Parts: sequence; structure tokens; C-alpha cells
Amino acid sequence: MLEKIDISKTITTAEYKKNQKAFKAILGELQRKAWDLKIPVILVFEGWHVSGMAEDINRFILSLDPRGYDFHTMTRPCYEELLKPFIVRYWSRVPVKGKIGIFDRSWYSRAIIECLEKNKSEEELGKYLEEINYFERQLADDGYLLIKVFLHISEKEHKERFKDLKKIDIPIFDEYEDEARPDLDFIHKYNEYMPLVEKILEKTDMPYAPWTIVEANDRNFATLKIMTTVIHAIEDSIEQATRTPAEQTLKYLDTETPEVPQLNNSILEKVELSKKMDTDEYKKSKKIYQQKLADLQYELFEKKRPLILVFEGWDAAGKGGNIYRFVENLNPRLYRVVPVGSPNDIEKAHHYLWRFCEGIPRAGHITIFDRSWYGRVMVERIESFCSEEEWKRAYREINEFEEILTQAGSIVIKFWLHIDQETQLERFNSRQHDPEKKWKITDEDWRNRSRWEDYKIAVDEMLQKTSTTNVQWIIVESNDKRYSRIKVLRSVVETIEKELKK
Amino acid sequence: MLEKIDISKTITTAEYKKNQKAFKAILGELQRKAWDLKIPVILVFEGWHVSGMAEDINRFILSLDPRGYDFHTMTRPCYEELLKPFIVRYWSRVPVKGKIGIFDRSWYSRAIIECLEKNKSEEELGKYLEEINYFERQLADDGYLLIKVFLHISEKEHKERFKDLKKIDIPIFDEYEDEARPDLDFIHKYNEYMPLVEKILEKTDMPYAPWTIVEANDRNFATLKIMTTVIHAIEDSIEQATRTPAEQTLKYLDTETPEVPQLNNSILEKVELSKKMDTDEYKKSKKIYQQKLADLQYELFEKKRPLILVFEGWDAAGKGGNIYRFVENLNPRLYRVVPVGSPNDIEKAHHYLWRFCEGIPRAGHITIFDRSWYGRVMVERIESFCSEEEWKRAYREINEFEEILTQAGSIVIKFWLHIDQETQLERFNSRQHDPEKKWKITDEDWRNRSRWEDYKIAVDEMLQKTSTTNVQWIIVESNDKRYSRIKVLRSVVETIEKELKK
Repeated sequence: MLEKIDISKTITTAEYKKNQKAFKAILGELQRKAWDLKIPVILVFEGWHVSGMAEDINRFILSLDPRGYDFHTMTRPCYEELLKPFIVRYWSRVPVKGKIGIFDRSWYSRAIIECLEKNKSEEELGKYLEEINYFERQLADDGYLLIKVFLHISEKEHKERFKDLKKIDIPIFDEYEDEARPDLDFIHKYNEYMPLVEKILEKTDMPYAPWTIVEANDRNFATLKIMTTVIHAIEDSIEQATRTPAEQTLKYLDTETPEVPQLNNSILEKVELSKKMDTDEYKKSKKIYQQKLADLQYELFEKKRPLILVFEGWDAAGKGGNIYRFVENLNPRLYRVVPVGSPNDIEKAHHYLWRFCEGIPRAGHITIFDRSWYGRVMVERIESFCSEEEWKRAYREINEFEEILTQAGSIVIKFWLHIDQETQLERFNSRQHDPEKKWKITDEDWRNRSRWEDYKIAVDEMLQKTSTTNVQWIIVESNDKRYSRIKVLRSVVETIEKELKK
Repeated sequence: MLEKIDISKTITTAEYKKNQKAFKAILGELQRKAWDLKIPVILVFEGWHVSGMAEDINRFILSLDPRGYDFHTMTRPCYEELLKPFIVRYWSRVPVKGKIGIFDRSWYSRAIIECLEKNKSEEELGKYLEEINYFERQLADDGYLLIKVFLHISEKEHKERFKDLKKIDIPIFDEYEDEARPDLDFIHKYNEYMPLVEKILEKTDMPYAPWTIVEANDRNFATLKIMTTVIHAIEDSIEQATRTPAEQTLKYLDTETPEVPQLNNSILEKVELSKKMDTDEYKKSKKIYQQKLADLQYELFEKKRPLILVFEGWDAAGKGGNIYRFVENLNPRLYRVVPVGSPNDIEKAHHYLWRFCEGIPRAGHITIFDRSWYGRVMVERIESFCSEEEWKRAYREINEFEEILTQAGSIVIKFWLHIDQETQLERFNSRQHDPEKKWKITDEDWRNRSRWEDYKIAVDEMLQKTSTTNVQWIIVESNDKRYSRIKVLRSVVETIEKELKK
């Protein structure tokens, strides 16, 4: 992509000033329209070191309304970030809908650095690119506009600019050298890095997230080209968004979206809910497995393996009680329970997967999600909190999301706690009459109960579509609480033991 | 405080189990009441290393509803945090109103480590304690309930438990050793640390944030004492909150709250608004000062001095245009503009200073606040978004807040851009008739304008009460935009030069 670019283009300062003023007015107007339409924009700056990025970015952001953008200079990942999957630090910086998120260096620089500095293999690079493509496509599907700019200069120019470097480069604090150094000074070996840069640009130049190569020998030309690129992209997005649904053409025509077939047989109906355990066996087993877990917790930590548990299930199926027994003997410094309820304001203004980033455990730590991203294909589907197209798309998104987690070494275990309608009714009634548990039961629980059949269809579909070779659902027969708790404990112990042996 | 404690108390396991169950029910109930009343709780755990903290904490949090608390194990500060004022990393973790924020190690451990490991002087310890007292008192004043627990064991017990340590201690990842090690394994030299620990406990045992010493030789006793301490404290808070205002006694009787005297003379009225500058001088000066600023930016970075600029002023006084000229030549990787508007949901559910923590610059960086914490004593006062008692208290809180910033080496410069009512009217009208600027003027601007006299009183009072020897207000005559912009540029250049010479 870079070879065919003519990088000799120049623009006089007078011409620049005239255009810059006009473009500034247009950009301001577009920014306000995008805000009203809640169109989020992600603008990525990449390019050769000494390509003049900092100056171009400053000239660009001066044309924006500061209330409408976030600016991120991506320095090297900090300790916390290094211990999480590659893409999580970028996910968590995605802007709210309506805003522009500007990335000064991004997931691309990081992938290049990882490969060249840590000598990663072709295969590992492929994994990063896959994560990047998942990330960008999921955002594009959710209405995010992705603009990616690469500032390109010739080898000769690159060499010359390096002479002056000391003056323009940002100094580094010695004691934090590794972390403080922005991901901006890495592409210094032009020829050596060229093949990899070329390859990455080509592999990630997608219809929904295209690259624009900006000829950056001349500052004025570069700035104006950045501005026009952004202007055209936002204009197109606004036009697209203001069309009637019938007129809309999909930015990214996704033929892969899984069709939802009529299910011939229900997974849930085959579950044998009669399974039971007596008190003695329960007590004995609980003690054994809790002790094993306590030991495995430290082993996971030593081996830097994160563990993610997802608890889903019918209301009153016993999620809370199960989690309680699971963490009873653990070290609170290494585990975390993340209860998932309705999203707040800020969460609603993001992609639905965004709010789970914060809870993703560091290497060696454990997160227990009490409900999770599966809300998308259950409550959000049934209550129409998202469109049909959105929840249908979510199966693939969730599978990709979990793939990213396991690729980073996480052990992911997900449970569906299953009970029948009678058991739920008994438990609802007993809660209602117990003053200490009455708060646990709300109108919402009764409403959900009345939609049991709808949930059953959604759950069956979910179990089928998101049981991958990567992460299987474990269905837990939970009419008997003792049986349920021991099955959860045993499943976790066995899965960890198996994974640690791999 | 520690010497007189009898640490031999024990409780049998049977007794423990009986009580624990009862306390759990009470705690759950109190937690829900506190949530309804929006009472936030901060629970601090400190104590000797090997005092059994992790286990006690786990037993305690298992008695809580996971939706109602945040748990923070305070490891060593990361790179970002080290470059910010001491207390900021704790401020940013304060829970929303209604929740319990649990700190496993806290600002106390950190102060002790800083002093003992980095050999800080008595005077420097004093500064930390001052920051801590400001922090805790400001939270208590805002309705936060502070519970501080110190787990105490005897020297003999301490020595014995150390023998077993390898087994219970959390291993550390070699490559991140410094950051990964929790602030929990520091108090290993019992006798050496005792005098400092004693001193800090005494100096921070405040009526609004008292210490509770928990005898921790016996696990059962310790857990139950923690539970009863928390139960009593929350009960008291709930009782206090549900009294009628007349019945309420102030938890912390603050005789220092500054009275608001009738002002005899207005600072604003004395400002000479006729000051002007012609275009030639403006262009020449702008070029000189912008160049100086660009150089000073790198000098600030090299010397690790953060710079904070606060822009306040009448609507249409020219804040945006001033900020534009200020950053025009700067490196966007080292500065940030933080526009301050109405708080969002999450911000509203916190102390009003909380939302500014995120924008506090790292050492060597610059943040420009376009409006700021001064909203508390202007718009929030005038529109009654806070109570009279709250805005009156805010003067001192703001002064303390800025003192913490300057103590950490920040240069703080605050501007009041002053114009007269006629100039404002002219600018409003011209904006209204300019299609490119029309969006800048809203009904709110006109409403604020109609309350000019109220604002004048509030601003005069603010300028008087928050001009400290530490940070002075700079009043900028802004009827003439050129004069205003140059005065801002010049003031910043001169202040930085003066500060860097110190």
C-alpha cells in the first residue's frame, strides 16, 4: 500500500491557512451533528516515527470542539494492562456514542512492537490481527465510524529528520523508562520495519475500517489531507444515518451472520432435574473441593493463568449461594465477584461489551461474573432492549470475545443453573414469606417468570450457539441446591486441573 | 493506642458460627437501608502483616451483598499514580453514595512505606498526614461514613506466624516485583515500625474518622469484632440520617467554617476594562510567548513539574479563544484540555471534587480546565444545586485541594476572564447572528446573563476567599480579546519561569 504513494505533494502556507479555516468550520458543524445523531468516531493515527504526527494531531484537534473528543496517547502498557488480553486496554478507551476517540498510536503499533521486539512468530502476529479485526468489526457493526490514518514519509526524508530528533523528541524519565516511552518512537528502522508495516496495513484494510495513507513530507499537505479524510468520512456516516431504514445500505455486508433455525429439540428439556445429594456427602465433598480450590488459586497465580467464571441461570436457581460456596475459602486479594445488573448511563452509551472490560481479571486472578454479557441474548432480546439484528449478531460477537480471553491464557467456565418452574415458584414463595429474604424477590422476578417460555427459547438457542470447542456451557441441575453446588465446585476443580496440565 | 489493648480474647468456633449468621442478616439489612438513604461507607483495613487480614476480610465480605460494595487491594502505586499527588489514587477510588468501599491497605500503609523505605523526614510525614486529614474530613463532611480498623497482634504472635509465612503469602511475579507486591507485606519489623504506627494512629484518630483496634490473635474474635464495629457505625449513620434536620447533631462540629461577611468593596468593580492592544503588538507578542511556552513545556517535562491552568469567567468572555492560543504551539502528548460541564449520573453520585481527579496531570504534563471545581461556589450556589452549608464549606475545601496540588510540585494558575455586561450583550448578539457561531449561544447563557448581579456577588466572594498565598487569582481584563490573550500567555510564561527558578 505504501509503495505507490507519491509523497512529494506540497501546499503553501497561505493556501493552508485559507483552507484550514474553512475546514475548521465544517468540522465543528459535523461534530455537532454527529453528537446529535450519537455517531461515535474512532480516529487512529499511525505512521513512521518523525513523520510529524504530534504536530499534525495538534493542528487537527485545534479544529475540534474540546467537549466532543477524547485524546489518547498510547504509551507502553502499564503493569495492569500487560496482565490482561492484548485488546482490552483499547476496548476500555472506546468513546461514548457521539464522541470522537482519537488514538495517537494504537493497537497497530503495539502489535508491531510485540512482534519485532519480542520476536513473535508469524502465527502470533496472526492472533493479534485476528483480535484487531474482531474489535474493529464489532465496533463498526455497532455504528462506530473507524478512520485510520498512516503518515507516510520517504526513506530519505526519514533519515534527514532523524538528525534533528533530539530537539523534538519527548524526554523520558529514567526510572520509568520502559513504561513512560510512548509507543511512538519505535519505527526507527525504516527498511527493517517496512515489510511488516506493509503487511499489517494490507491485512487490516477493511471496507468498514479502511486505511488512508497520508503523504507527510509536507506538513501543510498532511494536515489538510487528514482534515478532508475525516470530513468525508463523517459526512458519509451522517448521510447514512439520516436515511430512512429502507434506503440504508449496510456499510459492511455481513453474509456470515448466523441464521436462527427452528430448533427441533430443546437442550433444557433433556436435563435431568431429579439429581440429588444428601447432607453428609454434601458436607464431605464441599470440604474436599473447597480445599482443592484454595490450593489451585495459588497455583493459578503462580502460573499466571486468569480464571473467569460466568454464572447464568433462572431467577432463584441459586447463583448467589453457589458463588458464596465457591469463594468461601479463597483469598479476596485474588478473586472478585462482578454482579451484572442494568447498565448505567455511561454504559448504555457504549458498545454492550465495553462494560465487561473492567472486570476482566489480570493474569493469575479470578473474576466471577454473576450474570454477564449473555444478557444481550436473553433479557435484552426478550425485552427488546436491542434490535433483532443486534442480538442475532451477538452470538458470534460473544464467541469471539471468549476466544480472545482464552487466547490470552484465561480459563473460561460458564454455568447455566437449571431448575424447573415448580421449583422456582416454591423458592419465590418461600422468599416472599421470609422477612430476611423478602428483598430478594421483586416484581421483575415475577414478570420474568411469566415469560418463562420466551426465555426457554432464548436460552436453548444461546446454549446451542455459544457452546464452542473453545468454551462449553456446563448445565447444572439445580433443583437440589446441594447437588448443584457440588457440581459447580467439582467442575471448576476438574477444569482447572485439566487446563494446568496442558 | 496499641499498648493498652488486651489481645488475648478468644471465641469458640461454635459461638462464632452462631453469631456470624445473625450478624450477616443484620449487615445485609443495613446495607440495603444505607443504599436507599444513599449513605456511602469507607471501610479501611490496616494492621500488622500476618495479622490475618485477608481471611478476616473474606469472612467479612461474604456477609455482604456483592452489588453493594467495591473491594480494593491497594498494591504499590503504578507508574501513572506515582506521577500524581499522593492522595489522588485514593480519591479516585471513593465509592458512589450508597455503596461500601473496602480498602485492603490504604493511604496509611502508603504513608508508612514512603517514610520508612524512602527515609522521609518528620516534616514530609506531616504533609501526608495533612493530606489524609483533609481527605477524610472532606468525605465526612459530605456524608461519608468512615470506619478504620487496625488488626493488632502481639510481638510474640507476630514472630510465630512468620514461620509459616511462605505458605500463606501471595507469590510475586518476578518481572513486576515492585508494582505487584501488595502494600501488605511491609510491616514485618514489628519493633522498628511500632513507634511510627502508634504515632500515625494517634494523629489520625478523628471524631469523624475514628480508629478501631481489633485484637487479632484469635480469628473468630477478630471477625466478629469487625462485624460489630461496622454494624454499630452504620446503624448510627442511618439513625442520624433519618432524623429530622432539627434533631441532627453534626458528627464533626466545625467551628472553622468561614463566615460570609458582607463585602464592602467589590474586586470586580475595580477592574479596568478599558485596556487594549493593537493588532501589530498582538501578533508580535503572541509569536514570542507561544514560542517561549513551547520551550517551557519541555522544560516542565524534564523537571517533572505538572502545570494546571484553570479558566473561569463570564459567558462569552473568551475562554475558548484564550485556550486555543495557549495550546496552539504545544505538543498534544503533554497537554490536555478538560472541558467541565454538568456532571453525569456517576459524577453526581460522588463528592463534587471526585470528578476532577482523572484530569489531574502527571508530573511534567499540563492540564487546562475549561471551567472547574469553582462551579461549586458559582453555578451550584446560584442555582441551588447544593445547600448553603455545602457551598460555604467549599471555599476551604478548594483551598485545601489546591494546596495538595502545589505540595506535590504542581504549578497552579487560575484566571478569571472579566468583561462588562455591554460587551457580553454585543458578543451574544453577534454569535446569534453568525451561522457558524450560533450553536455557541443557548437559552442557558441568556438565563445566566439575567442573573448577572447574583453571579457578581458570588464571584467577588470566590475571588476573595480562594486567593491564597499558595495560589492567587489572576483577573484578566477581557473586553479586548487581544489584550486578554496576551495577558494570559504572558502570565503563564512569567509564572512558570519564576517557579522553575525556585
